[in-house]
Amino acid sequence: MNLLKSTLELIEKPSQPVMDKAQARLDNLTKPLGSLGRLEELAKKISGIMGTERPRISQKTIIVAAADHGVAKEGVSAFPQEVTPQMVLNFLSGGAGINVLARHIGANVLVVDAGVASDIAPHTALLNKKIAYGTKNMATGPAMSMDEAVKTVEAGIETAEAAIKGGASIIGTGDMGIGNTTASSAITAVITGQKPEDVTGRGTGIDDKSLANKVEVIKKAIKANSPDKNNALDILSKVGGFEIGFLCGVILACAANKKPVVIDGFISGAAALLAYVFKPETSDYMIASHCSVEKGHIVALKHMGLKPILDLDLRLGEGTGAALGISIAEAGVKILNEMATFAQAGVSEKNK
Amino acid sequence: MNLLKSTLELIEKPSQPVMDKAQARLDNLTKPLGSLGRLEELAKKISGIMGTERPRISQKTIIVAAADHGVAKEGVSAFPQEVTPQMVLNFLSGGAGINVLARHIGANVLVVDAGVASDIAPHTALLNKKIAYGTKNMATGPAMSMDEAVKTVEAGIETAEAAIKGGASIIGTGDMGIGNTTASSAITAVITGQKPEDVTGRGTGIDDKSLANKVEVIKKAIKANSPDKNNALDILSKVGGFEIGFLCGVILACAANKKPVVIDGFISGAAALLAYVFKPETSDYMIASHCSVEKGHIVALKHMGLKPILDLDLRLGEGTGAALGISIAEAGVKILNEMATFAQAGVSEKNK
Repeated sequence: MNLLKSTLELIEKPSQPVMDKAQARLDNLTKPLGSLGRLEELAKKISGIMGTERPRISQKTIIVAAADHGVAKEGVSAFPQEVTPQMVLNFLSGGAGINVLARHIGANVLVVDAGVASDIAPHTALLNKKIAYGTKNMATGPAMSMDEAVKTVEAGIETAEAAIKGGASIIGTGDMGIGNTTASSAITAVITGQKPEDVTGRGTGIDDKSLANKVEVIKKAIKANSPDKNNALDILSKVGGFEIGFLCGVILACAANKKPVVIDGFISGAAALLAYVFKPETSDYMIASHCSVEKGHIVALKHMGLKPILDLDLRLGEGTGAALGISIAEAGVKILNEMATFAQAGVSEKNK
Repeated sequence: MNLLKSTLELIEKPSQPVMDKAQARLDNLTKPLGSLGRLEELAKKISGIMGTERPRISQKTIIVAAADHGVAKEGVSAFPQEVTPQMVLNFLSGGAGINVLARHIGANVLVVDAGVASDIAPHTALLNKKIAYGTKNMATGPAMSMDEAVKTVEAGIETAEAAIKGGASIIGTGDMGIGNTTASSAITAVITGQKPEDVTGRGTGIDDKSLANKVEVIKKAIKANSPDKNNALDILSKVGGFEIGFLCGVILACAANKKPVVIDGFISGAAALLAYVFKPETSDYMIASHCSVEKGHIVALKHMGLKPILDLDLRLGEGTGAALGISIAEAGVKILNEMATFAQAGVSEKNK
């Protein structure tokens, strides 16, 4: 609890004077005012986050946390639970979507077992932060204890802080866990106040009947647990998941250490909502990479005042959207750093 | 005229059987069906274009064509005409937005003088394809002769074919030319049948009064010239521009040589419309990179049945949106090539 507490105490608003300086530089580059739109916005935001009007992005890291969900036994997913550890092995051997996209943008992938329901053979690239062998079934009681909730958030903080100490200048979030859209919908419904049916989608691809069942399971879980919408640990312990709590910790650590954190899709969005309940200032450190097909995601982003960069009909998770978002954010930072000014290039300015 | 004719004759529909094979492979990769959304669409489209279900993108080239416009003297732009050659020098010294973004995605930039109104000192990286010292004022008569129109399209074809012979596997289009949104709005209005006021925007940033004048100038140009909406050369010669005709040639050459061509913003969109009038099959070879702030751009894209990949509020041109679009398209191709299948990774498939 001490690490969580001290991390929250470090989080403050990004620097407005630095953002003003970055804006002044952007306005003086050889282009019509504001003509690089959201690239300029991203450059300015990252300047404020990093506290310098000439931020540099060197090492890019995507942290992919995996865990299982007791609620999977309610028939909420199209895939069997064994897929969680199988996909972890796929991440480790480099064959998953996130591996391909991370290589494409020049990022490294850190794979974490935050609570997979089976043992995974040790691997040099796998970080073992297993809190338990999956959560309990939230439809009938809390998914985890309060102690476990604190532990998984703090494991996320520790992991992100180690990555930052190791040189990461921007971090993307990613997830894997059969059943985790169910937990994410429950978290999103509780925090945003929306009805479960308005924030619940098809996950990996369930049919209408399974979707109706999934909504009922979420309603049952919320009724059985009565989570307090203003208490992130209470929500996490009752209707959350280990990877979601872990990613919440990653986001808190980025905010405390003044690094931009690029939020992937719906599950990462639920983790971001928990971070936002812990401390609303965290949203100033978040970059929303894309708008997921899962309809609860845009609800979560709007609740935090975030606008996604991309809309590519993605719904895979793993950090795939975050990878593409990191590349666009990096493009914005390079515009700020590398473009010539009107004076440098000898280009005439706008007619007065 | 022979080169243009023979190029048009080579353009045919991309291979549907190859696209079917690509789709079958995409459906067998370790992810829920269709969960990589538009990345999968792009991979499939590029497969069909290249005629192989395992397409590879090696060299990426952005062709930036610059030219001046006689209509600039009607006060349609916020910047003076001298900015066109100044920005060409900025491209050559690597300080412009397109240089930064091309470096970011690992593309090379080919800068072309297609008709700048002044002489530009020779430079190893500058291709001189100057047709004339800018177009004539379209508000009072044709912008160029029919012979010049053919010449600029053929110069684009030659340039793109040389780039493809040199190894380019994907080409992005880019433009520079003070006054060229005016020509692009005129072309878009003529081809799509929309009113000039519905396809005319602020370009580099003009005020309300100048915008009203710009719309009047476009109406005057269309009335004075009566371009035939079914004749691309007629439209180009009457209300076009040298860089627009040149980029139209680039697009035709890509279609004829079975290479994907990534369309930048509004000016490239007008060039794409001309290519579409020449032969509608060209749109199957186009990838719309982004949705420009210029309101005529989405009208042009819809006319050709294209949906932009990105919406980042860009309005710079130069190929900046194309650069980012190329990177996303490349990500899609890598997904198709590099992801493991369910069988390869030993991952269980969906519950039946």
